[in-house]
Amino acid sequence: MDGTTYLSHVAYDSVIIGFSGDELKILIMEYHNTGLFALPGGFVRHDEDLNDAVRRGLQERTGLKNIFLEQFYTFGSRKRHQPKVMRKILNANGVTDDQHWLLDRFISVAYYALINYNDVVPKPDALSDSCRWYSIDNLPPLIFEHEEIVSRAIQTLRDNLNRKLIGMNLLPDKFTMKDLQQVYESILGKKLRRTTFQREMLNSNLLVRHDKLFSGKAHKAPYLYSFRN
Amino acid sequence: MDGTTYLSHVAYDSVIIGFSGDELKILIMEYHNTGLFALPGGFVRHDEDLNDAVRRGLQERTGLKNIFLEQFYTFGSRKRHQPKVMRKILNANGVTDDQHWLLDRFISVAYYALINYNDVVPKPDALSDSCRWYSIDNLPPLIFEHEEIVSRAIQTLRDNLNRKLIGMNLLPDKFTMKDLQQVYESILGKKLRRTTFQREMLNSNLLVRHDKLFSGKAHKAPYLYSFRN
Repeated sequence: MDGTTYLSHVAYDSVIIGFSGDELKILIMEYHNTGLFALPGGFVRHDEDLNDAVRRGLQERTGLKNIFLEQFYTFGSRKRHQPKVMRKILNANGVTDDQHWLLDRFISVAYYALINYNDVVPKPDALSDSCRWYSIDNLPPLIFEHEEIVSRAIQTLRDNLNRKLIGMNLLPDKFTMKDLQQVYESILGKKLRRTTFQREMLNSNLLVRHDKLFSGKAHKAPYLYSFRN
Repeated sequence: MDGTTYLSHVAYDSVIIGFSGDELKILIMEYHNTGLFALPGGFVRHDEDLNDAVRRGLQERTGLKNIFLEQFYTFGSRKRHQPKVMRKILNANGVTDDQHWLLDRFISVAYYALINYNDVVPKPDALSDSCRWYSIDNLPPLIFEHEEIVSRAIQTLRDNLNRKLIGMNLLPDKFTMKDLQQVYESILGKKLRRTTFQREMLNSNLLVRHDKLFSGKAHKAPYLYSFRN
């Protein structure tokens, strides 16, 4: 990996949000021997599309394949240029070149994904730094403006909740209204009133209703729903 | 302007959408002596934030100041790299350097704005190429993937219509329901049913109702509304 392989000044970062029924977690990398934490990110080869670079890099660094990623903002402030921090990371990897291309200023294109983290286990390759899930309420301090990137990802997700949930594989094909409410509550970070939530969902035209979930007591069984295609 | 002033590989493009009561128009640049049309765009200086670069460049190229710009997507496909087209533009400006930095591959961060085009007259500075408004239904062929950038800007605007209209200065501080419906119809590109539109807007909690517009016949005067802060 050097400055002739990758486009200079262009990076990406990814906010991988994991959901497991009741809580949101975020995938965070730790750079070996630095105590520095960051979002999983990477760079774009001269001969690859930006979106392909993100998928490739994410797979290399976290082992996650074929997840649905959505670009949400490009961060281009000068304040994100912190060569001292980058030098610490390079030094920990035995690189001491003062003209290293990574010491330059980068803009970063940010992506987010929302996945069921029981379905995917991050497995970084042997060369990568370690990564693990952190509860969204208990993230370690992150380098550069990565905390701002996380905040903006969550805000984007909340703003687009109705449109974005479809296709995100957070829920099984068929689910109950209670399952759906738990997803909304964990993303919005607050409890919702059951009757209001149910009425709004049914009015939203997002859902198709199916047969009741069999439980032996038919009158108590909840209806199953799926997202309308 | 040369390759040491600007970040390599990073560009921006802007989709400036003008509204004048009933029709959407888009601001398009024509490069002198080339027959090539493009969105107004530019580059980022090493010492300026991305968002500042966009504001500066737009003012230099179009004369538009202080408009509300919103970033919506970053285009990073390799297919947007078309050095032949760029060479034609450079040649028309007397530049024949085969290693010119503009011949490199760029990713482009795209922004859109929605303005009342009666309020602002584009005035490119003496060095700039010409720019003028084109009806959205009658754009000239655009270079690179600029037509895709326009489509995505319009789609983003439609998706976010309720949230984005506020603060966009498209309407006076107080406006009638009919004024508002015309804005929606021109952005959505279709006629809406008056009674349905009015009910949805009143239910949306977006609006504050004020006194009636005085017209002499009080019972026929329409109510005035403003956006809730």
